[in-house]
Amino acid sequence: MVVARSIALKAVNTASLWGLNRSRFGGLPKVQTVRALSTIMSPPSKAVVYEHHGPPDSVTRMIELPPVEVQENQVCVKMLATPINPSDINRIEGVYPVRPQVPAVGGYEGVGEVYSVGSAVKGLSPGDLVIPSPPSSGTWQTYVVKDHEIWHKISKDSPIEYAATVTVNPLTALRMLEDFTTLSTGDSIVQNGATSIVGQCVIQLARYRGIHSISIIRDRAGSDEVKERLKALGADEVFTESQLEVKNVKSLLSNIPEPALGLNCVGGHAASLVLKFLSFRQGGTMVTYGGMSKKPVTVSTSSFIFKDLSLRGFWLQKWLSADKAKECRDMVDYLLRLAQEGKLKYEMELVPFDKFHSALEKALGKHGSQPKQVIKF
Amino acid sequence: MVVARSIALKAVNTASLWGLNRSRFGGLPKVQTVRALSTIMSPPSKAVVYEHHGPPDSVTRMIELPPVEVQENQVCVKMLATPINPSDINRIEGVYPVRPQVPAVGGYEGVGEVYSVGSAVKGLSPGDLVIPSPPSSGTWQTYVVKDHEIWHKISKDSPIEYAATVTVNPLTALRMLEDFTTLSTGDSIVQNGATSIVGQCVIQLARYRGIHSISIIRDRAGSDEVKERLKALGADEVFTESQLEVKNVKSLLSNIPEPALGLNCVGGHAASLVLKFLSFRQGGTMVTYGGMSKKPVTVSTSSFIFKDLSLRGFWLQKWLSADKAKECRDMVDYLLRLAQEGKLKYEMELVPFDKFHSALEKALGKHGSQPKQVIKF
Repeated sequence: MVVARSIALKAVNTASLWGLNRSRFGGLPKVQTVRALSTIMSPPSKAVVYEHHGPPDSVTRMIELPPVEVQENQVCVKMLATPINPSDINRIEGVYPVRPQVPAVGGYEGVGEVYSVGSAVKGLSPGDLVIPSPPSSGTWQTYVVKDHEIWHKISKDSPIEYAATVTVNPLTALRMLEDFTTLSTGDSIVQNGATSIVGQCVIQLARYRGIHSISIIRDRAGSDEVKERLKALGADEVFTESQLEVKNVKSLLSNIPEPALGLNCVGGHAASLVLKFLSFRQGGTMVTYGGMSKKPVTVSTSSFIFKDLSLRGFWLQKWLSADKAKECRDMVDYLLRLAQEGKLKYEMELVPFDKFHSALEKALGKHGSQPKQVIKF
Repeated sequence: MVVARSIALKAVNTASLWGLNRSRFGGLPKVQTVRALSTIMSPPSKAVVYEHHGPPDSVTRMIELPPVEVQENQVCVKMLATPINPSDINRIEGVYPVRPQVPAVGGYEGVGEVYSVGSAVKGLSPGDLVIPSPPSSGTWQTYVVKDHEIWHKISKDSPIEYAATVTVNPLTALRMLEDFTTLSTGDSIVQNGATSIVGQCVIQLARYRGIHSISIIRDRAGSDEVKERLKALGADEVFTESQLEVKNVKSLLSNIPEPALGLNCVGGHAASLVLKFLSFRQGGTMVTYGGMSKKPVTVSTSSFIFKDLSLRGFWLQKWLSADKAKECRDMVDYLLRLAQEGKLKYEMELVPFDKFHSALEKALGKHGSQPKQVIKF
């Protein structure tokens, strides 16, 4: 693919605007001096970008980005699907601890098909199904150019929507079940926010390992139907918050032992309900991985002293930063195998890319509880 | 020592009342059938006892307990000194998780001199200075009879008031500096409730290891004088709670790194101030070992997720239950050596036993902040 000089110059001008996307723009000025007939360029890319941090529905817009050179170690991927995750929203809002430099392309995970590869790239060929792993920013666009090391080739049989969403939420669920306490067959865990993707994955991954799960959901219209859905996934017990307003929650458990691990993505009262279950034994651990209620966690001093309670936190991005690339990919393969076998599933709504902003509105919670929004290119 | 049958019978009658103190009473009925001229009996013992749980100043009374047989593996110790600790008060109130069976003699640590030993006891002789180690209930009395294994012989040069108080508070301070995070020379820790014995020990033990300490005290009349006293013990920085009502507490630290470990014995706002210091780094740990304010600990979900904060608890009694007898004694010897060398000190008020109830009132906080009350027999 050879580009006319006029397009390259146009790209240089725009590059200052989109400085962050180095793979797309950073190399252009130098390239002009060495460009040969063999230079590989990406197609132009349609992307959801933001120039300022702020409310995602007002600061993001869809634009066309010019082609960029695919350097010798890079791979150009035609994206097939990418989700809108809460952490994507937080990054755009600028409330994430790692604040992306703007302007930026949104998105952090997704799946695509190799479109073209740089001259030095081995092991990846056009048509391969790949995901950025560990996940990597800028997936909300039609063509992504990144170093070949970013891309993890996955089985061509992988269900596309699960491949697009496997590296953030299911991985979080898997790590939290592994990293904080030793769980054996027959043990139990308790979680709030159980209808989230992480929550649904926790239920299924626990069940797959013979671990019982107790799930707490908000009181809402249709909660009986939600309970049935979670139980169909393998949840042993599902309670609404108001059902737990009893003195002894232990009496609500039929044949399940007191949980050793609690998972909290809500905070506030919903976190206290998780702690209520943990209070029946010594040495329980509650792991906080979200704070949907925007309320803090409140704990009695005696739980720490006399019950040896531990409170911890989990953040996937930090876990990934500790040189976990190989481990991350092994887990992704494991999770995708489960998804392919129908042992790991969760609700998603596939939305065409040109309807991105209506999907974003749903992801922002503007239309009540909605399934995970996944953009299909 | 031989007792007349009449005394022995009286003891039997009282035994049903004081069933808990088995060493003093449990063996008597059997003894009567085998008693020989060589039977060793303890002197009668003056003891602070309670028959019901409740407010310590109303449920405790001082009575005389009759002599008991010192069986072949037992040692009778003439007590020299014993403190009134907050945990002693909680045990009497019945709010401790391990609720003593009543009637009971109060007290949990102390020091004494061996008075007589059972025929099979080796390694302990009359005149030896001993402490119950691990600590053991029933030290608020003039003569204590317990199995020889309970008694730990300490150096005769040990300062009595430190020997009486070393196994609960200084040991707690030492363990908390060791068990939760790896501290190296130059690191720092932060604590609230710094005027407590544990707090004073933390300052000195940290200093002795080259670790900086930041102490938080309540706002009170004379806080400048308290600050000076704690600084004289080795505190690097001492702040009243109100001094920490600034946006960036880090700016208050001159040459001290952000602490990795926080110690909390207060809860509520004072715990939040400890967390404020811990928030400047990744992976800090706050250990709760008390809850003087009777208020819970409140923490943002983001501290767990993005700062990898851990909240833990410490309870000496649980630590001791894990077969730590040898380790406990080694640490006691270490701490007593420091006390003897003047490297570990804290304020105490020595009170004669017959003034026990006025000491108890002070220990209950009825006369404002007071030094640790230590009964001298």
